[in-house]
This record gives sequence, structure tokens and C-alpha cells, in this order.
Amino acid sequence: MQPTHIEHIGIAVKSLEQAIPYWENVLGLKCYNLEVVADQKVKTAFFMVGQTKIELLESTDPEGPIGKFIEKKGEGIHHMAFAVQDIEQALVDAESNGVQLIDKAPRKGAEGLSIAFLHPKSTFGVLTELCEDKNKK
Amino acid sequence: MQPTHIEHIGIAVKSLEQAIPYWENVLGLKCYNLEVVADQKVKTAFFMVGQTKIELLESTDPEGPIGKFIEKKGEGIHHMAFAVQDIEQALVDAESNGVQLIDKAPRKGAEGLSIAFLHPKSTFGVLTELCEDKNKK
Repeated sequence: MQPTHIEHIGIAVKSLEQAIPYWENVLGLKCYNLEVVADQKVKTAFFMVGQTKIELLESTDPEGPIGKFIEKKGEGIHHMAFAVQDIEQALVDAESNGVQLIDKAPRKGAEGLSIAFLHPKSTFGVLTELCEDKNKK
Repeated sequence: MQPTHIEHIGIAVKSLEQAIPYWENVLGLKCYNLEVVADQKVKTAFFMVGQTKIELLESTDPEGPIGKFIEKKGEGIHHMAFAVQDIEQALVDAESNGVQLIDKAPRKGAEGLSIAFLHPKSTFGVLTELCEDKNKK
């Protein structure tokens, strides 16, 4: 699979409005994009630090994945995402190595990326996303 | 503060021996260093992906911070660490912005870095480490 870098870190927050000033004023990173991902029932805010995006996630529905996560575990890091060069092949390789796939095929994520999640049961507790930017090709 | 990149992601695992093959064989990253950090009661394994290290953390003591984390939350992402250029100033700035510091002054972490932790209560649930590599200067 050999990911090239960490594409983003997804962080669950109760309120973007409350969390964004911490990321901007304390850490000194600039929020460059706000996006609603209806499919995932979240509003997202993006920051860039080196090669990696920080993706703050606020739930738009208590029954959505981020709403449930916060109810169970509180605010905090939700997932990490690796940039890969061939997401279809990466999924085939992962499954052949015994990894349980949440997404059998890539779907469209925030910022137009092709994404797929691996189940944390088979990744030592880390909810892992694979991302490929097909617009770059 | 303006961190330059994500220095590492710290991931709590029950067993390095069991987790390392996943990172090497499934993700295709190479473990380039093993280190005991006695102070933190952990054994660590390092992988590089782009600018960022993955730091797997196995507790050497159930009463250590990683032992307690796994007991409470299970395996998974434990903290994220930002590379900063002046850690002393970054701590002053963070505290003056109302951030609660776990470490009032930097101490020595894995790989010889100067490190300090910010309390997740004031960072929206994300246990946050600041790192400066003073050997690079």
C-alpha cells in the first residue's frame, strides 16, 4: 500500500464555532475551508499543517457517526487518513491481508477525494481512512 | 505557535509484537526504531510516513499512562504531536491563551526531542504534544 503521507486527521468536536478559534488563535493555523458532507452527517472545517489537513467534524445529527462517537467517547481524534496512489488496489491488498473493510469500494468524501474506511477491529483500534485524489491525475 | 508539521501520531497498542506486522505488511511502512522511554513506562516503535512519524506505544506497566488509557478506552490513537520551532515560547503563548499545560517546561522525549504536553481539557479533547528538535540547530 505504501501511503505517501498522512492526508488528514479527523477530529470530532461538539461545535465548530467553539473549536475553530482554538485552532486559529492558539495553534496559529488558518481555517481555509468549511464544507458540509451530508452523507456523513457532518459539517467540517479544514486547516493545513505541513502535508496534512486537520479536519474538524461537527455532527449535524445525533444519530450520525460523529454524534454517536462524541456521545460514547467525548470530543477527540476520530480517525486518521492516509494518502494512497491507487485506492482500489490498496483495498484489494488490505482485504487479502485480512483487514475488514467498512467500504468495499471507494466513495466520494470531502474535498472531492475518493475515500474508503478500514474497520478499527482489524487495524488495532485506529479507524483508518484511505484517500486518493483522482483530480491530480 | 504555527507548527510546521505533524511530528508524530502516538498510538496505544497492547502489543508491539502483534501490531508491528500490520504496519509493515499491510500498510507497507518500515519500523526503523525501537526505543524504551522509561519515564513514560512505554516501549515504542517508529514508522515514517511522509513528514510524520507513527509512534506505537506499548505500556510496560499497567499503572503507566498508556496502560491506563488502554484499560479505559482500548487500543487506538492516543495523542498527536506538532513540530514547533521554539517550544518554550509556544508554551508561554499557549498558557497566555488559557491552555492548561501538563508540562510547564519542556522535557526529554523519545528520539531526543524536547517535548511538552497540553491538557486535552483545553484542546477540545485532543491530547496534544509539542516537539522541538534542538539537535537540528
